[in-house]
Amino acid sequence: MTDLPPEIIERLKDFLDEDIRTGDLTTSILGTHDGKGVGTFYAKSKSVLAGIKEAAAIAEIMGLESEVLVSEGSWVDKKQPVLRVMGKASIILQIERVCLNIIMRMSGAATKTHNMLKLARKGNPKVRVAATRKTTPGFRFFEKRAVQVGGGDPHRYALDDMILIKNNHISVIGSAEEAVKAARERVSFTKKVSCEVRDIDECIAAVEAGADIILLDNFSPDEVAKAHKKLNEMGLRDRIILEASGGIDESSVEDYAKNGADVLSSGALTHSYIASDFNMLLELTEK
Amino acid sequence: MTDLPPEIIERLKDFLDEDIRTGDLTTSILGTHDGKGVGTFYAKSKSVLAGIKEAAAIAEIMGLESEVLVSEGSWVDKKQPVLRVMGKASIILQIERVCLNIIMRMSGAATKTHNMLKLARKGNPKVRVAATRKTTPGFRFFEKRAVQVGGGDPHRYALDDMILIKNNHISVIGSAEEAVKAARERVSFTKKVSCEVRDIDECIAAVEAGADIILLDNFSPDEVAKAHKKLNEMGLRDRIILEASGGIDESSVEDYAKNGADVLSSGALTHSYIASDFNMLLELTEK
Amino acid sequence: MTDLPPEIIERLKDFLDEDIRTGDLTTSILGTHDGKGVGTFYAKSKSVLAGIKEAAAIAEIMGLESEVLVSEGSWVDKKQPVLRVMGKASIILQIERVCLNIIMRMSGAATKTHNMLKLARKGNPKVRVAATRKTTPGFRFFEKRAVQVGGGDPHRYALDDMILIKNNHISVIGSAEEAVKAARERVSFTKKVSCEVRDIDECIAAVEAGADIILLDNFSPDEVAKAHKKLNEMGLRDRIILEASGGIDESSVEDYAKNGADVLSSGALTHSYIASDFNMLLELTEK
Amino acid sequence: MTDLPPEIIERLKDFLDEDIRTGDLTTSILGTHDGKGVGTFYAKSKSVLAGIKEAAAIAEIMGLESEVLVSEGSWVDKKQPVLRVMGKASIILQIERVCLNIIMRMSGAATKTHNMLKLARKGNPKVRVAATRKTTPGFRFFEKRAVQVGGGDPHRYALDDMILIKNNHISVIGSAEEAVKAARERVSFTKKVSCEVRDIDECIAAVEAGADIILLDNFSPDEVAKAHKKLNEMGLRDRIILEASGGIDESSVEDYAKNGADVLSSGALTHSYIASDFNMLLELTEK
Amino acid sequence: MTDLPPEIIERLKDFLDEDIRTGDLTTSILGTHDGKGVGTFYAKSKSVLAGIKEAAAIAEIMGLESEVLVSEGSWVDKKQPVLRVMGKASIILQIERVCLNIIMRMSGAATKTHNMLKLARKGNPKVRVAATRKTTPGFRFFEKRAVQVGGGDPHRYALDDMILIKNNHISVIGSAEEAVKAARERVSFTKKVSCEVRDIDECIAAVEAGADIILLDNFSPDEVAKAHKKLNEMGLRDRIILEASGGIDESSVEDYAKNGADVLSSGALTHSYIASDFNMLLELTEK
Amino acid sequence: MTDLPPEIIERLKDFLDEDIRTGDLTTSILGTHDGKGVGTFYAKSKSVLAGIKEAAAIAEIMGLESEVLVSEGSWVDKKQPVLRVMGKASIILQIERVCLNIIMRMSGAATKTHNMLKLARKGNPKVRVAATRKTTPGFRFFEKRAVQVGGGDPHRYALDDMILIKNNHISVIGSAEEAVKAARERVSFTKKVSCEVRDIDECIAAVEAGADIILLDNFSPDEVAKAHKKLNEMGLRDRIILEASGGIDESSVEDYAKNGADVLSSGALTHSYIASDFNMLLELTEK
Repeated sequence: MTDLPPEIIERLKDFLDEDIRTGDLTTSILGTHDGKGVGTFYAKSKSVLAGIKEAAAIAEIMGLESEVLVSEGSWVDKKQPVLRVMGKASIILQIERVCLNIIMRMSGAATKTHNMLKLARKGNPKVRVAATRKTTPGFRFFEKRAVQVGGGDPHRYALDDMILIKNNHISVIGSAEEAVKAARERVSFTKKVSCEVRDIDECIAAVEAGADIILLDNFSPDEVAKAHKKLNEMGLRDRIILEASGGIDESSVEDYAKNGADVLSSGALTHSYIASDFNMLLELTEK
Repeated sequence: MTDLPPEIIERLKDFLDEDIRTGDLTTSILGTHDGKGVGTFYAKSKSVLAGIKEAAAIAEIMGLESEVLVSEGSWVDKKQPVLRVMGKASIILQIERVCLNIIMRMSGAATKTHNMLKLARKGNPKVRVAATRKTTPGFRFFEKRAVQVGGGDPHRYALDDMILIKNNHISVIGSAEEAVKAARERVSFTKKVSCEVRDIDECIAAVEAGADIILLDNFSPDEVAKAHKKLNEMGLRDRIILEASGGIDESSVEDYAKNGADVLSSGALTHSYIASDFNMLLELTEK
Repeated sequence: MTDLPPEIIERLKDFLDEDIRTGDLTTSILGTHDGKGVGTFYAKSKSVLAGIKEAAAIAEIMGLESEVLVSEGSWVDKKQPVLRVMGKASIILQIERVCLNIIMRMSGAATKTHNMLKLARKGNPKVRVAATRKTTPGFRFFEKRAVQVGGGDPHRYALDDMILIKNNHISVIGSAEEAVKAARERVSFTKKVSCEVRDIDECIAAVEAGADIILLDNFSPDEVAKAHKKLNEMGLRDRIILEASGGIDESSVEDYAKNGADVLSSGALTHSYIASDFNMLLELTEK
Repeated sequence: MTDLPPEIIERLKDFLDEDIRTGDLTTSILGTHDGKGVGTFYAKSKSVLAGIKEAAAIAEIMGLESEVLVSEGSWVDKKQPVLRVMGKASIILQIERVCLNIIMRMSGAATKTHNMLKLARKGNPKVRVAATRKTTPGFRFFEKRAVQVGGGDPHRYALDDMILIKNNHISVIGSAEEAVKAARERVSFTKKVSCEVRDIDECIAAVEAGADIILLDNFSPDEVAKAHKKLNEMGLRDRIILEASGGIDESSVEDYAKNGADVLSSGALTHSYIASDFNMLLELTEK
Repeated sequence: MTDLPPEIIERLKDFLDEDIRTGDLTTSILGTHDGKGVGTFYAKSKSVLAGIKEAAAIAEIMGLESEVLVSEGSWVDKKQPVLRVMGKASIILQIERVCLNIIMRMSGAATKTHNMLKLARKGNPKVRVAATRKTTPGFRFFEKRAVQVGGGDPHRYALDDMILIKNNHISVIGSAEEAVKAARERVSFTKKVSCEVRDIDECIAAVEAGADIILLDNFSPDEVAKAHKKLNEMGLRDRIILEASGGIDESSVEDYAKNGADVLSSGALTHSYIASDFNMLLELTEK
Repeated sequence: MTDLPPEIIERLKDFLDEDIRTGDLTTSILGTHDGKGVGTFYAKSKSVLAGIKEAAAIAEIMGLESEVLVSEGSWVDKKQPVLRVMGKASIILQIERVCLNIIMRMSGAATKTHNMLKLARKGNPKVRVAATRKTTPGFRFFEKRAVQVGGGDPHRYALDDMILIKNNHISVIGSAEEAVKAARERVSFTKKVSCEVRDIDECIAAVEAGADIILLDNFSPDEVAKAHKKLNEMGLRDRIILEASGGIDESSVEDYAKNGADVLSSGALTHSYIASDFNMLLELTEK
C-alpha cells in the first residue's frame, strides 16, 4: 500500500476525475470486452526518474497491480522500462495519460534540479539548491517532491511554513530590523525567521536582530562574496544561513556557490522545467 | 462579478488554500496593522498576456477590488502594468504569489501558442494549432484556456469529450476500420470520432469507416502531403479534418501546415512552455 | 472491482451519506448482533433492467460481496432475482433503499426509452431516440446511462459538450447563419455545432453556414418531412444530422421517424419516467 | 439573501457544476458580448408551484438579481410568469436549464401531493399524506420539500431520523414486541419509534410494547378499519399514530383515509411524479 | 471492515489530513526504512474506554491491521493495553497522535457520563442522563457517541432532529401554547416536540397544547418536584417526558433524579470533560 | 470582510452544516415570519475572550451584520456584552449555538493559557508556554489560535511543521545523535529540528549533533536545572532552545520556568480546558 499522505491520495483522485470525468468514451468501443493486460511505462530520453510512486498509487486507486522497476532518483535512458501496471486493459488505458503527465513533469523538474545541483557543487560541495513558491497551482506538492528527488531542497510549502520578510513587508513595517524583531516576538519558537535584504547594511541589521536565514535578493556573485566576508569579519556568519536568489541559473550557479552562499534558490526549477519524455505500451495478456 | 464557471472558482479557492493554508505567518508581524494598499502587477518581459481574468477572480474571492489594465491576448512588454488590486494590504500580500503563478504560466503557454501559430500560418493561413491532454494535472483548464487566449485550439478537455481511437485501442479491437465502425455505432450523435493512423492505408480505411477526424501520428511533412493528396484523389478529403501530431515544433510547424494538415497538435504547448516573468508591487494608500 | 469512473463512485458515496447520515438508528436495536446474510433484489414488474452496476458498486463501497444475476439492458419480470449481495446483515439493511432507489429509477428510464425506441424503429429502423438535459439535478449521469442501457442516445451531458444554438442565442447574435459561423470559428475542431431552427429557411441557412446538426424545434411530422425533402433536393441532406424535438411522445414518435429525422429527442425520457418496482429480501445465513 | 441552509446552497452549486462544468460553449459564440437581460420563467400548464426559492438562490449564487412573482404552494396556470432574473444575459442563459429542472420536478411532486391530499381529505379532513425514502438519490431534500409545499408530510429524511422497524429487522430480532422494546431502551428519548406490522396481532403487540407509530403495511382499507376498531376497543388507539402504506394511490386514498388511518404514505409522490412544464424567455435590456 | 457510517469515515480522514498534511517530516529521517512494527495503546489511568472503534477504523484507512483488546464501555486501568495496530512502523507513528486524541477525548466524555449517570441512578434507577448541542464544532458525532458509550442519551444531533422551542422562540411567537400548537401542525408526524418552560403555568400550557417533552429550564430540584406533582394531579404526567436542564452537575444530579425528572441533560458532559490519559508504544517486529 | 484564511472559512461552514443540516425545524414554527433582530452575546463568568473573530465570520457567512464589542485577548466578566449580530431573527437563532460553542471553547483555552503563563512568568518573565498536538480532531486551528490569544505559543500545527524526534523514532534509528544528524541532512533548511531526550547525556549528544530545540521529556524541575547548568558549562546553552514537557501544570509551571527552560509545553491547554460560559439574547427590532 502506498505511503503517500491521505491528502495527496485525494489529490491524485482529483487528477483522475479531471481526465476521466464521466468516463472514457473511447474504451466504450471495446464494448463488454473484459481482457486483462500489462501496461509498461518507458523512458524516451535521458532523465532523472520521479513520479513513479505517484503513478503506482494511481494504479492502486483504480484496482490495478503495479511493479516499480527503477527507484526514483535514478537516471533512466531511452527505451528503459520504469513501471509496470497489471489488470483490466480498459482501466490501464484510462490511467495512462494522468500517470504520464505526472511522471513527465516530475522527472523534468528532478532532472533540472539534479543538473543545477551538480553545477553548484563544483563551486561548493555542501551547497544546497532550493525551489521557491513559484510552482504550478494545484501541483505544488509534486513539484516540490520532484525537486527533492533530484537532490534539492523544497523550501516553503505554504505561507505558514516559515516567516519570510520581503521588501513589501519591510516597507509597511519600517525597517528590516524592526520586522525581524517583531517576527521573533510573535512567531512560534518552532519556526525559523528569514529576511530578504537588498544590501549589506540591511543584511547586518537583520542578522543582529536575530534572523535565522538571510535571503540576498538579486545580489551578484561578487556582492554575495562581500556579504559573506563582512559577516565573517563581524563574527556573525555562523549564526545564519545565507541564501541567494534572483536570476540564478545554470550559467551562474557555480559562481554563487563558490562565493559563500549556503543555499541557492531558483524559481525556474518549478516554473520552467522541460517535461521529460515517457510513454506507455499496452500488451493484452488475456482476451 | 467574474464569469468564470463556478467549478473553476472552487479550483481557484483550492489554489489559495494550497498557498495560505492556516494563514500567512509573515503578515503576522504587521500585528493589528489594518492599512489599505494598491498592488500593481507588471510584465517583466515581452509576452502574450493571459490569466488576468483568473487573477481578478482571486481578488474578488478575497474581498478586494480589481481593475484589468490590459485585455487578455494582447502583447505586453517589460514594466507594463497589467492589473491593479485594491484593498487591505495584508490580503494583497497573501494573493500575490498565487496570482503571479497563474499569470506567469498562462502567459507563457499563450505566448508559445501564439508564436507557433504565427509560424504555422505562414504555411497555411487557415491552419489550427491545438493542444493535447499533456497538461499539468489539476491545472488543465487554465493551460487549455491559455492556449485559446494565444489563438490555439484547446482539443479534448477529458476522455468523455470525443472518441479518439489510438494504437492501443486498435490493437485490442483488431483494425482501425472495425474500431471506427464500433465507435460510430456506440457513441452519441453529438460526438465526433477521431482515429489515429500509422500509414496511408489505415488512413483510408478509417475515413471510409466514417471517422470525422484523422490523426496522422508521427507522419513526416512529406507523408502528410501524400496522405492529403491521396484523399483528394479519392474524393474523401472534404469529409474529414486532417490532424498531424508527433514532434511538431517551431522548426517543423510551417512545413506541416503547408502540406495539407488542417490541425497541428503539440504537447509541448502545455507541457514544456517557459513561464513569462511578472511581478507585483504594493503601495500603501492608507496606514 | 467496479469500472465506473472514480467521480461516479464519489457520487454513490454521497447518495449513501444522504440516506445513512450519522447512522442507521434502527439497526441499533440489533445491538452487537453481527450476523451475516444475503440480500436478494427482485423485480416486481416487467421492466428493462438498469442500475445493477451501480448497486454492485455500492455493495463494494460498503465491504459487501455481490453477484449480478441478470445483465443490464435485459427484460426482467415479476419475482425475478437480479442481484445478490452478501455480508454483514446490518450493512445489507443500510444499503437496501439507496440501491433500490437507483435500480427503480434507472430501470424506469431504460424501459421508457426502450419502448419509445421500439415504436420509432417501426418508422425507421436506423433512427435514434435521444435524451435531453431535462434531467434530475445531481442524478444526470445515472439517467443518461439508463437511456443508453435502454438503447437510446444520451445527448449532451453538460454545456461544454457541444455547441447548441437556441432561439435565445440567435436573438442575441442576429441570425442563425451568423451564429453558426461564429460557432464554427470559435469552437474547437473536436466539437460539433448544432443549431435549433424554427422554419425551413432558417434550416437551410444554418446548414449552409456549416452546422453539423439541425434541431427542428416543434416541427410537426409533416414539417419534418418537408425539411428533409428540401434538403435532399438541394443536395445538403448528407452533410447534416436531422434531429426533431418538442412534444415527441409514444403517440407521435413513429411518424417523426418515418418522415426523415435521424434523431428524435424527448425530455420526458428523463423527467417523467415511472420508476419500475423492485424490492429486496434479506435472509440470515449466520446468526 | 436566501434562507436555505448552507448545506443546500452547496448542493445547488453542485447542480450548476453538473450542467456548466468547464463553461457554456454556446455562449462563447457571443464573444465579448456583455449585454444585460431579463429572464422570465413561465408556467406552461396548471400546477402547484414549487422550487422558486431554489431558483432564486441559484440566481443569487451567480450574481444575478431575482424577483419572485408567485409564492410557492400557489396554483399557477399556462403562460403565468412566476420568477424574473436580471443581469448579464450570458449568465441567465447558463442557469436556465438547472432552474427549470428544479422548478419542473418540485412543482410536479407538489402538484401530485396536493391532489392526493385533496382526495384523502374527502375521507378524513385531518388525515396526513406523507412521502417515503423512495426519493431520487442526491435530490431528496428537494423532493421532500416539494411534498411539504404541496401540503404533505416529508416523513424521514435519513436513517438517523427515527426508528422504523421493518419485517427484515423483526426477522433478525425475533418478534415485533422484542424489537420495539429494544428500540425504546436503546434509542434517544428525542426519537420516535415506528413499527411496521403485517397483521392485527402484531399491531397490538407493537402498541403494547410502546411504539409511537404503527405502520400498517399492505393492509387493505378494510383491514385498516379493523385495526383501528380493535385498537379503539382496547383503549390503545390514542397512544399511537396509525400510518398506512403500500399501494396507496389516487384511487384508494379516500377509502384509507375514511377507515381510520392518521397518515397515508406513498412512495409514488417522489418516485413517479410527472414534471410540470415551465420555460424561460430572455429579453435583452442593454446590448 | 468498520461499520461506522461512510460520512464518519470521511471525517476520520479529515482528522488525518489535519495532522499529517503534506507528510510526516520526522519519519523522513528513517529514509527508506521499511520495517514492520506493532503499536500498542495503553490506558494511563482509570477510565471508561471509548473511541476504540474509531481508532481501529483509522488503522484500516491507512492499511494497517488492528486488534481491539477491550470492548468500548468497559472500565480500563493504568498500563492496560486496549488496542493493537500492526503494519509499517512509519505509518503506525503517523496515526498515533490522531488515534490518541480521539481515544482520550471520547474516553473522557464517556467516563464523565458514566459517573454522572451512576449518581443520578441513586435517585432514580430509570432516569436518563443526556448530552446537549454544546459540543466541539466538527467533533459532535464523536462526543455524542462517547456519551452513549458511557450510558447516556445523545439528545439532538442537529437542528433538524426535533422541535425544541426555547425562550427566544416563544418571545417571537407570543406564548408557549401557541408555539407548541404551531409546531404540532407544521412538523412531520415522525418528529417529537419539546418545549422549554420557565414556570409551572407555562409547563401545563405546553403539555396541554400537545408537547411530547417538557424541558424544565433552570428549575431547582424542588421546583422539579412541584411540577412533577402538579402534572400527576392533573393526570398529565404520563403524556410527557420531563427533562431538567441548567446547572446540573455531580453535586445536584441525584436530587434532580429523585424529584421526578425523566431526563437530566448537562452541557458539561461534552464541553468540559477532562481527557483520559492514554499512550502508544511501538515495537519493531521486522527491520 | 473577515481576514481568516479561506480554508478556515470553509471549516466554519462545515460547523454550520453539522448543526443546521437540512434546516432548523424549530424556526419553522415561525412560519413566514420575517422579522429582524439583534442577538447579543454575553459573558457569564470571568474569562479571557477568544473566538469573537470566528463568530463574526459566521455571521458574515450567513448574511448578518456584526459588531465586535470587546477585542480578543481581553478579560471579560459576567453580563458583559462582547458581540452583537444584526439581521433576520430566524438566522440569528440558527447561528447562536455554533457561535457559542466556538467562543466558549476558545475562551476557555485562552483563559487556561493566560493563567498558566502568568504563573510561569513569575519564575521567568521571558518564558513561553506552548500547546502541543493534543488537540480536538477537526478543531486544532481554533484551539491553537486560542492559545495564542491567551499569550501562548501554538507549537506545531501538523507533522510537516518541524522535525520532532521522539523516543519511538530514536529506537528505530539507533541513537539521538544519528537521528538528529539524519534529520539535519534530509530536512529543508527552512525547518527546525527538535529532539526529545530522556537524560542529560542524550541531551548533550543531540545538541552536539545540531538540534535547534531540545525537548526534556518528563524531567523534574531539578533535572531541568541540571541540564541547563551542564549545557551552560559546556558553552552549548545559547545554541538551542530548551523545552520542558510532561506533567507540567499550574502547580509546577513556576518551578520549571525558574530552572532554566525557555519553553514549557502542556497538552492540557488544549485537551482539558473548561469551556467559559457565554450566552446570547435575541431582541426583535422589527416584526
